[in-house]
Amino acid sequence: MLGAAAADPTRHRCPGDRLNGAMQLFLTLDAGGTSTRAVVHDATGTCLGYAVGSGGNPTASGVAPVAATMRSTTEQALQRAGAQPAQVCHALAAMAGSTVRLAGVDAGLRDLGVPVPLHLGSDLEAMFFSGTAALDGAALVSGTGAAAIVVAGGVTTGRSDGRGWLLGDVGSGYWIARRVVRAATADLDHRGPRTALTDALLSAAGVTGDRTSDKDALLDQLVSLLYAIPSPGIARFAPLAFDLADTDLIAGDIVEAAAEGLADTVLALGCADASSPLIVGGSVLYHQSGLRSTVTELLRDSDWTGPVHAVSDGTAGAICMNLRRAGVAVDVPTHARIIASLQQVRTNA
Amino acid sequence: MLGAAAADPTRHRCPGDRLNGAMQLFLTLDAGGTSTRAVVHDATGTCLGYAVGSGGNPTASGVAPVAATMRSTTEQALQRAGAQPAQVCHALAAMAGSTVRLAGVDAGLRDLGVPVPLHLGSDLEAMFFSGTAALDGAALVSGTGAAAIVVAGGVTTGRSDGRGWLLGDVGSGYWIARRVVRAATADLDHRGPRTALTDALLSAAGVTGDRTSDKDALLDQLVSLLYAIPSPGIARFAPLAFDLADTDLIAGDIVEAAAEGLADTVLALGCADASSPLIVGGSVLYHQSGLRSTVTELLRDSDWTGPVHAVSDGTAGAICMNLRRAGVAVDVPTHARIIASLQQVRTNA
Repeated sequence: MLGAAAADPTRHRCPGDRLNGAMQLFLTLDAGGTSTRAVVHDATGTCLGYAVGSGGNPTASGVAPVAATMRSTTEQALQRAGAQPAQVCHALAAMAGSTVRLAGVDAGLRDLGVPVPLHLGSDLEAMFFSGTAALDGAALVSGTGAAAIVVAGGVTTGRSDGRGWLLGDVGSGYWIARRVVRAATADLDHRGPRTALTDALLSAAGVTGDRTSDKDALLDQLVSLLYAIPSPGIARFAPLAFDLADTDLIAGDIVEAAAEGLADTVLALGCADASSPLIVGGSVLYHQSGLRSTVTELLRDSDWTGPVHAVSDGTAGAICMNLRRAGVAVDVPTHARIIASLQQVRTNA
Repeated sequence: MLGAAAADPTRHRCPGDRLNGAMQLFLTLDAGGTSTRAVVHDATGTCLGYAVGSGGNPTASGVAPVAATMRSTTEQALQRAGAQPAQVCHALAAMAGSTVRLAGVDAGLRDLGVPVPLHLGSDLEAMFFSGTAALDGAALVSGTGAAAIVVAGGVTTGRSDGRGWLLGDVGSGYWIARRVVRAATADLDHRGPRTALTDALLSAAGVTGDRTSDKDALLDQLVSLLYAIPSPGIARFAPLAFDLADTDLIAGDIVEAAAEGLADTVLALGCADASSPLIVGGSVLYHQSGLRSTVTELLRDSDWTGPVHAVSDGTAGAICMNLRRAGVAVDVPTHARIIASLQQVRTNA
C-alpha cells in the first residue's frame, strides 16, 4: 500500500510518536543515478545513521537492483543509528520514477521490518529543498540528464525539459558528451575542425593509437567502443569538455552552448517571481563551477535576480520533505541544523 | 568458404562457363536497410529473373533473418528466370557488414543448391557503379545513415562519415529526424521557437491531442512513443522536415544544415579529380530532389565540377561488380544495357 498512510486508520503506532519529540525515527532515502543515500534521523532533523549504496534510478538500474540497494542501505543506516526497523515511523524516498516502480522497494523494506509504507517524493523537489527552507523558487539539475522545476507553496507547479537523451536534456552530461564524441569523430574524419578533444577522447575511450594513426582504423575502434556503451552512458565523457574549455575553441563552444541551453530551460519555466531562489545541482552543475557561473550570468542578463545556490544532492531536501509530510515545520534554523547534522554523519560514515 | 573462389581449384565448373557467352548464370543480391533485391542474369548483363524481399542489413535486422531473406529472394528470382540453383556460376551480394556476417547467408544459399560461394561487395561501391560505367569518381549516400566514398581504378580508396547515428551520419534520415523531434519537443516545452513540425510530429507519432493540450501530458506521450522506437528507427520522421522546408523556418534550417553536412562529407574525401562523376543515392537523397539540388550547388561553390547523378539503389552496380569479378568488361553500352534490362525485369516482377 503506497502513499496512503495519513488516511490509513490501521497504520502502525510508533512508541514515541510525538511531533517535535526525539523519539520518532524517520527513514529518508535519496536515490540518484550513481548512488543511493539512506538517512535515519529524528523529528528535529538530527541525523543518527547514514549509508550509501549503488545507483537508485529504476529506469537506469532496473527495479530489483534498486529495491535491493534501498533495503541494504536502510539496514546499514539503521545499524549505524543503533535503531530497529520497527522504530521507523515515517519513510520517504526521493527518486525519479513512478509509484508503480516503488512497489518492489516498499515490499523490500516491509520484509526488513519497517512497519510503515514508503512514500515517494520527487528527486527534483528534493534538490530544491536541499538548498533552501523557502517554499517558493526553482531548481535546475544537470547530471546525466537535465531538467528544471518551479516550486510554489512547497509543490512543483511547472517543469521544463527532462525529456531524456533523445528528445531533450539540453546541457546535460549526455548532451555535452554527445557533442564531444561527434566533434572528435568529425575531426578524425577531416569533416570538422581540429580539436584537442580528439586525443583526449581517444585516450579516455581506450583507443590504441593517436591522431597520426590511420584514420579509418582509429574510427573503427572508436565506433566499436562507443556503440557498446548503452545510452546515455557516454555522459562519462562530458568532463573532457570542461577540462579543455579554456584552451580549446570547440570544447569552449560546447560548454557555452550547454550554459545557454540550461539558462533557457530555467527561463522557459516562466517563474512569476524571478527574485526567488534558484537551487542548482546534479553532478555536472555541482562539479563544474565555470558552467554554473555562466548559467548565472545568462540568467542575470535575463533579469533573474534571485539568489543562485548549488547543492551536491537532494538528501537534505528529502529529509525536509519527510519531516514536513509528518507535520514538522522546517524553518530556516531547522534547515540549517539538518544540513550541519547531515554533514557530520557523512563525515563519520 | 568465403571470397576464395578464384583461388579454389575445386570450384564448381558451370556447363556453359564461357566468358561473354549467354550460358553462364549470375546471381546478384543487393541488400539494403529496407529491402533486399535478387537478380538472376547472364554474362551480357541481361536480367532473367528478379525478386524483392525484406531488409538485408545484418546490423539492423539480425544475421538469421537476413540469411532467410537472401535465400527466399534467390529462390524466387531463379524461379522467375526458369533456372536451377545449380546453374549459378557467380554469386555476389552487395551489403553493409563483414564477411563474418556473410557466413550464415552463404550456408543458406548452398543449402538451396547454389554451388558457388557468395562473395561480398560494398554497398557503397554498388551505389557508385549503379550510376556510372567509370572506374573513378565518388558516391554519396544518405538513407537512414550517411556516408561517402572515393573510388579509384574500381576500388574504394577513401571514405568519409558512415560512423552511425551516435558518432556521425550527418545529413542522414536519422540526423534529420533527430532534429525534427528535438525541435518539436523544445517548442512544446516553450524552450524553443514555434514550428509547424510540432503538430506534424504529434500527428505522425500518433499522439492524442494537439498543441493546445496540456504540454506535459503531450510531452509524456511523445516520450513514451519515441523512446519505444529502437535507434535509429526515428529516421521515419525525416520526411516531415522536407514536407515543411519551404514554409517553416525551422524545417528549412534542418534541411539546409543536412545539405551542408552532406557536401562537407563529400569534400572531406579530398578527391584528386573534382571533375569525376559523383553518384548520389539512398532513400533521402534519391527521393528529396530539393536536398540533392542544394548539395550539388554547395559542391559547385567548392569547385566540384563533375557530373552529379542520382540512383535509386545499388542493384545495377552490384550486377556490374559481379560481372567484373568474373572477368566481364562493363563498358558504357553494357552498363546502359544492364540498367535497361533491370528496369524491364522490375516492371514485369
